Amino acid sequence: MSDRLFLEDLVVGQRFVSAAREVSADEIKEFAARYDPQPFHLDDAAAMGTLFGGLAASGWHTAAMTMPMVIDSVPMEGGIIGSGGELLWLRPVRPGDRLHVETEVLEITPSRSRPERGTAVMRCTTLNQHGEAVQTFTPKIVVPRRPAG
Amino acid sequence: MSDRLFLEDLVVGQRFVSAAREVSADEIKEFAARYDPQPFHLDDAAAMGTLFGGLAASGWHTAAMTMPMVIDSVPMEGGIIGSGGELLWLRPVRPGDRLHVETEVLEITPSRSRPERGTAVMRCTTLNQHGEAVQTFTPKIVVPRRPAG
Repeated sequence: MSDRLFLEDLVVGQRFVSAAREVSADEIKEFAARYDPQPFHLDDAAAMGTLFGGLAASGWHTAAMTMPMVIDSVPMEGGIIGSGGELLWLRPVRPGDRLHVETEVLEITPSRSRPERGTAVMRCTTLNQHGEAVQTFTPKIVVPRRPAG
Repeated sequence: MSDRLFLEDLVVGQRFVSAAREVSADEIKEFAARYDPQPFHLDDAAAMGTLFGGLAASGWHTAAMTMPMVIDSVPMEGGIIGSGGELLWLRPVRPGDRLHVETEVLEITPSRSRPERGTAVMRCTTLNQHGEAVQTFTPKIVVPRRPAG
């Protein structure tokens, strides 16, 4: 008996809330140096004169930090495998922010051609310590169906 | 005289092609360990028995690797600042794959309220060495207008 979730265990409106994790300036700069090397993600002083008005995490860093929180809080059988969806960055993520993720099941669709699986659309909202959404991601996830018997 | 692009320099249908970069198994596992710790992104043997049928990069890693290629190939004034868009993963990215990015301008919209800027919708397609699209991302980007005079 697994405590992982199959398609049959999901309900539209079901919600999952992750633990929180803090974001450091060092981590913001380290991620940016490798994957998004632009002044507003790399350097406090240079970031002041930009649209961000101060150091902000790369959106890709926010997305990357969000993923382990989804994995830990949404115990899907077989893991979290998605084909993508709408990704929106709503507010800057700043050094010292404390993020968590709230996931809601929006749609559940058994596959017509593959009886062993289906898909679920989920909205994963990443929030800061003020309860403000900094990112939403609304992926379609592949979810196995519970084996018969 | 800057050689960076302002909103006035963009044309619908305009295309930008990046240089290519190779993806290593070590980098796939290193990214996954930190940001997407699931067996199909971490371990060759464990990945064989999953939907991926072998080690594959995290979609977030593909997205992260795509970003420096966009930054280098799309010389937007002020950098690449997006509010998000549709992100789709179309095929697995494997160790040894050689990726590049092709970006196309889809829409150009001057801001009504902010005369100094506008937005552009771009489609950034990440392709492998076989010319197969592995990811598309279609963000809305903030682009400054050329200062008068």
